[in-house]
Amino acid sequence: MLRLSKLADYAVVLLARLGQEDGLHTAPALATATGIAEPTVAKVLRILSQACLVEAQRGARGGHRLAKPISAIPLSDVIIAMDGPIALTACVDGATGGCEAEGHCPVRGRWDPVNEAVRAALSAVTISDLARPSCSELHRHAPVFPPATGAAVKAVPVAAE
Amino acid sequence: MLRLSKLADYAVVLLARLGQEDGLHTAPALATATGIAEPTVAKVLRILSQACLVEAQRGARGGHRLAKPISAIPLSDVIIAMDGPIALTACVDGATGGCEAEGHCPVRGRWDPVNEAVRAALSAVTISDLARPSCSELHRHAPVFPPATGAAVKAVPVAAE
Repeated sequence: MLRLSKLADYAVVLLARLGQEDGLHTAPALATATGIAEPTVAKVLRILSQACLVEAQRGARGGHRLAKPISAIPLSDVIIAMDGPIALTACVDGATGGCEAEGHCPVRGRWDPVNEAVRAALSAVTISDLARPSCSELHRHAPVFPPATGAAVKAVPVAAE
Repeated sequence: MLRLSKLADYAVVLLARLGQEDGLHTAPALATATGIAEPTVAKVLRILSQACLVEAQRGARGGHRLAKPISAIPLSDVIIAMDGPIALTACVDGATGGCEAEGHCPVRGRWDPVNEAVRAALSAVTISDLARPSCSELHRHAPVFPPATGAAVKAVPVAAE
């Protein structure tokens, strides 16, 4: 399966959540907001901090926030931070253990351009593209209706049954 | 890990091998040529036949061959045949079992363009791009050296130690 690891998937969810509201977010609050178990939230935040995608502030009033705008975080950076380099086959990153075909492989050493094409596709998407706007953002961008111009809406009586 | 399944990986290897030499190839011969275990070869060929990427001919002189030129088989078709639709997250193809975040997910329903971008990148690559030329092809395209023009190469005696 060409699938993200669970941790990479959760990392996207947590970054999207951090991008929805400014300020510091604690792991318990993020766990409540996203439905991801708190130990998993803590683990993902630790890895994202090491990759300089989120900033941690210690202390009683501490928490985590994005290290850069959500629109400046390519999906590829998140996947690489959580799962390592994008490599569709195990042989590319040196983890050849268990490949039965290595000795005679007719496609050996030809995967780099494919991995690069996938990486490019994923770097063209940012977490901002993936994140749904928060309720407060939706309100901020909600259309402002003009004041009523006097046309009354006629109330239609509901027939009693 | 954003990684092909072992079976998809082997399918690419087998298709590349089938593309190296015309004619019918038996599963035992393909197993010997690629180093992939014969039961695995048989399993992959069965799936590739169902996906109309290879043709099977029964009988004592039977075997398998490509159903179309190797340059007309996009990598995406092979991955989809072996692993199902390209979906980076489990929720996209309905397999949400085990996702802790589904209820509050801030990126829910936003993955389709990402999956489509990855599919497009993988459909731009064909098995022909991945396959190394066979020895016979290398010979066919090898430069033809002009006949020697009489300049003799002087043999340098190797000093005995």
